[in-house]
Amino acid sequence: MTFDMKRRLAAEFLGTAILVATVVGSGVMADRLSDDVAVSLLGNTIPTGAILIVLISILGPVSGAHFNPAVTIVFAARREIEPPAAALYILSQVAGGLAGMLVAHAMFELDIFQASQTVRTGGGQWLAETVATFGLVFTILAGLRFRGDAIPWLVGLYITAAYWFTASTSFANPAVAIARAFTNTFAGIRPGDLPGFVLAEVLGALLAAAVAGWMLAERSASISQIAVKGAE
Amino acid sequence: MTFDMKRRLAAEFLGTAILVATVVGSGVMADRLSDDVAVSLLGNTIPTGAILIVLISILGPVSGAHFNPAVTIVFAARREIEPPAAALYILSQVAGGLAGMLVAHAMFELDIFQASQTVRTGGGQWLAETVATFGLVFTILAGLRFRGDAIPWLVGLYITAAYWFTASTSFANPAVAIARAFTNTFAGIRPGDLPGFVLAEVLGALLAAAVAGWMLAERSASISQIAVKGAE
Amino acid sequence: MTFDMKRRLAAEFLGTAILVATVVGSGVMADRLSDDVAVSLLGNTIPTGAILIVLISILGPVSGAHFNPAVTIVFAARREIEPPAAALYILSQVAGGLAGMLVAHAMFELDIFQASQTVRTGGGQWLAETVATFGLVFTILAGLRFRGDAIPWLVGLYITAAYWFTASTSFANPAVAIARAFTNTFAGIRPGDLPGFVLAEVLGALLAAAVAGWMLAERSASISQIAVKGAE
Amino acid sequence: MTFDMKRRLAAEFLGTAILVATVVGSGVMADRLSDDVAVSLLGNTIPTGAILIVLISILGPVSGAHFNPAVTIVFAARREIEPPAAALYILSQVAGGLAGMLVAHAMFELDIFQASQTVRTGGGQWLAETVATFGLVFTILAGLRFRGDAIPWLVGLYITAAYWFTASTSFANPAVAIARAFTNTFAGIRPGDLPGFVLAEVLGALLAAAVAGWMLAERSASISQIAVKGAE
Repeated sequence: MTFDMKRRLAAEFLGTAILVATVVGSGVMADRLSDDVAVSLLGNTIPTGAILIVLISILGPVSGAHFNPAVTIVFAARREIEPPAAALYILSQVAGGLAGMLVAHAMFELDIFQASQTVRTGGGQWLAETVATFGLVFTILAGLRFRGDAIPWLVGLYITAAYWFTASTSFANPAVAIARAFTNTFAGIRPGDLPGFVLAEVLGALLAAAVAGWMLAERSASISQIAVKGAE
Repeated sequence: MTFDMKRRLAAEFLGTAILVATVVGSGVMADRLSDDVAVSLLGNTIPTGAILIVLISILGPVSGAHFNPAVTIVFAARREIEPPAAALYILSQVAGGLAGMLVAHAMFELDIFQASQTVRTGGGQWLAETVATFGLVFTILAGLRFRGDAIPWLVGLYITAAYWFTASTSFANPAVAIARAFTNTFAGIRPGDLPGFVLAEVLGALLAAAVAGWMLAERSASISQIAVKGAE
Repeated sequence: MTFDMKRRLAAEFLGTAILVATVVGSGVMADRLSDDVAVSLLGNTIPTGAILIVLISILGPVSGAHFNPAVTIVFAARREIEPPAAALYILSQVAGGLAGMLVAHAMFELDIFQASQTVRTGGGQWLAETVATFGLVFTILAGLRFRGDAIPWLVGLYITAAYWFTASTSFANPAVAIARAFTNTFAGIRPGDLPGFVLAEVLGALLAAAVAGWMLAERSASISQIAVKGAE
Repeated sequence: MTFDMKRRLAAEFLGTAILVATVVGSGVMADRLSDDVAVSLLGNTIPTGAILIVLISILGPVSGAHFNPAVTIVFAARREIEPPAAALYILSQVAGGLAGMLVAHAMFELDIFQASQTVRTGGGQWLAETVATFGLVFTILAGLRFRGDAIPWLVGLYITAAYWFTASTSFANPAVAIARAFTNTFAGIRPGDLPGFVLAEVLGALLAAAVAGWMLAERSASISQIAVKGAE
């Protein structure tokens, strides 16, 4: 089944919006209700993993459910999406992320416009974001190769783990990172720390594409055909 | 397979009863055992998500497993259930919800008849209920469209997320909301706050039907045929 | 595939042993590590639900994975297992449960032989056990009817919910209850309180068989054929 | 599909590295954020179970996704992998585990080279490791026999349970144990306590192979054919 570009962009917008509303909203809820930061992180992790499974399942057939510029860039590099479409995808993701952040603020009756003051910088954080996005993109590429219909689960479970095993709590997504710069809550990141995160994320994504390109190259069947089959 | 109306109504009654017994009962258990409200909400969330997966799996083939007047209204608006049947469904859901609440009180040896004093009102709460029910109904409609057999999982996981990312903890269900007005425990809502919640829920449900109607309309195959196939 | 009685009984023994080792062992671990009883119950719930999914998946094809006299009694009442075999099943389950309890004590370097002092009695508890076992057996019967291959998940998720929504934390299993009488740890039950629990469990199980017998009776296909198909 | 040895070893290396990075990294994160050790163990358990499901799903088709010398030894004993290949697998696993530990230290800006001081020794711990690895290997062998495509889930869920029901928190993997000896964090084990753990793990693995060999031997179809089918 094929959807027109208008609907695909709407799906990228809506999916990224709900994803960011979940990341930010569950962070606010968890932070308000507990003094134990690990409990708050559980209350942030479980909803994020769960909503990813839902969103990729229900919007994947429309747009491919990227919700993430790093993912779109990798598909563009693999020539599985045309550059103009990729640019529109990324714009929709960033706009959707910002919209989701605003809705989260409105639901929790917080100031709509905020800037985060949470410092997230330094070598450890950048390495963590590179590792986090490497793992995410490798999971997607290998999942598309071998278990297309399990992709929603694999991504949701990967992020569930990565929230905890990376020192940066795994943003792993430039559109989500940008939206999180504008919320001074549990999930925030200082706007000035964004460039480091975004660069690290793109680096990790491209690294994953390279490793997957080598490790999974065995069969003669076209990867893109399998990817399409997996997305259906 | 087709079940007669008697059995379908019994399934809606039983399913909503077990759902509300879980929401209320796990709330009582979690609230009794912890002083950390986020831990209590985890102890309320995980059982609710889990029982939804079970109930929709085992009763979906009998009645469609609505358990929710907002869902039944949407299916009626889409002419996938006749109005008289829809009215009976809603009555069964409300009666089931009340029965589940009574059983929870009896198990925990609480006063059987109570009225909640928990204030849940205001713009943020209403927006949250609209968002929560929008997401639930969109998940159901898109799930039926693309992954019918995953619907139990998608709904259970969506509610798992929505308990945390919406400021209202996502009632998203008028029958459950009514039952929760009559329990002065963790999951309660002041009876006077019900109308705002119910209106917001119905609004969110209809909005989701409109958005899904546009975004997912691509193929010529009848949606209702797919819905039936998914339910089998 | 058909396994001989020797192997089926060994599977019932091993499965119930690992189940009880998990219930008792995770209770000891969780209770030792936390002062928050709800956190301990989470640490008891998540392993129990997880191991049920595993055990039913891997031993279901050998013995049917009852691990529970209440379940075996229901299958005997439905003439899906012969009474002598049912009696042997129940003996294996009780013996396996006791063995699992002993192994848990040995791993945690506790006294091997103990008697619980945890009071679990009264109308609320008995109602809770009836409700818990009703739900468990209804889930199994409806699951076998409609989604045989999802049974491990449905049972694991049902118990995950029932640990929290029933006031008794849902023993729902006479063999497990007997084993839990002999551990004076988090999961224990005073031996004198056993008869009330076991009676309530058998009552709930038979009630579920009656309700399921009515509600799910629609098709002419033999239930036992479907059950077998589901187990494959 | 068949991958060459170079890629298979790379997959064993990468998978074990990400597994250990998750075990160690989530342990550091959880331990830093909470004073409640049970909450920390939840924050260690959930990511570990989740990443196992992901890693086995995406790398299983390349290398079989052993990530564990105890598993490789069992497959060698069953002549499903040649001894020289098994030796290379084990080397890759140990090297990968050490690499994952180093990356976790770097992400969290800890000293790269450490030695654990956490005492894990004595009869209870050794019994626990034997039980833990018995259960893991039995789960894998029975899973391959009956539900090959569910193996990632069965292993992830088994470890989720075993972290709690065994007194040793279920290392159940000599390569992971070796890596954990070189981190003085939540997940560590004193290097001197390694031999006891590794011996107990290998013993449990071989015991599981023996029990599974008897209990599951019914059909004439070659187990290895089924194993291959399951891995595809």
